[in-house]
Amino acid sequence: MDQQQLFVKMGLANWNTQIARAEKVFNAFTDEQFYTAIAPGKNRIIYLYGHLAAYHDALKETLGLGKASSPELYEVFLKNADNGNAESPSLTELKNFWQSVHAELNELFVNLPATEWFKRHNAMTDEDFENDPSRNRLSVLLNRANHVAYHIGQVNLVKPFVA
Amino acid sequence: MDQQQLFVKMGLANWNTQIARAEKVFNAFTDEQFYTAIAPGKNRIIYLYGHLAAYHDALKETLGLGKASSPELYEVFLKNADNGNAESPSLTELKNFWQSVHAELNELFVNLPATEWFKRHNAMTDEDFENDPSRNRLSVLLNRANHVAYHIGQVNLVKPFVA
Repeated sequence: MDQQQLFVKMGLANWNTQIARAEKVFNAFTDEQFYTAIAPGKNRIIYLYGHLAAYHDALKETLGLGKASSPELYEVFLKNADNGNAESPSLTELKNFWQSVHAELNELFVNLPATEWFKRHNAMTDEDFENDPSRNRLSVLLNRANHVAYHIGQVNLVKPFVA
Repeated sequence: MDQQQLFVKMGLANWNTQIARAEKVFNAFTDEQFYTAIAPGKNRIIYLYGHLAAYHDALKETLGLGKASSPELYEVFLKNADNGNAESPSLTELKNFWQSVHAELNELFVNLPATEWFKRHNAMTDEDFENDPSRNRLSVLLNRANHVAYHIGQVNLVKPFVA
């Protein structure tokens, strides 16, 4: 394993840990609990679930690795805060969406050669990248893992229902 | 800049971003607000502030780079949840503690040669590390950055007082 491959392994392990943790946290809730707010007047669990899935759907485009499958969800889950919007997909639809987004990302990630991770992402110009090659695809992935952790911390404030 | 240096730069930037963000979030609160719970019945802001500072004080030892300056705080901030404990240091003391811990870490980090970041940390045996060299000091730092983000997500639920 060369050094680039080692770094990529570290970055992917870091990402996969957060995604696995998010799935464990969300999957512990009953369907009814998904509609609970994480704190009085704050986002509901279902909103944060859709928010993460939509953001990761967009991640394919940020990384320049594919097209978002459901950009119509940006409006509800990325551009607006939770407002009990009736236009949100059902929980079942969101669960399928979450699964397909993360399965697709996983497929893209495991097949991406290590050298590709160190190329620039689509939110950067060539000139910016030349000035700072540390801002590459892998650094975006590190950033997104922090973002997942940020919301797990919030969702974890709600204790799953135990019968 | 060689590849190891590049990856260290990415890891440190990722860590520094989260610490800077945490400081911005905490410093926006009045002293009185530090005693607010992030949600009903949950940890208070001051507890999470001390929790992060104490965990990062311990990080020096986990990385094998130094000794914790205040291990006596582990009991209040790492081994126990927030319980309004009277033995907690004052907010002023905690602010000094936060500053000194992060200043010391920063000093250690900027002076650590890139190759050192890819050595094993103290929570691992030599044998485990030989089997998986991706679990090194830098991977611990990535993990701790996620942990900071996790708690920022919670503290951000409290809106700072605006006069």
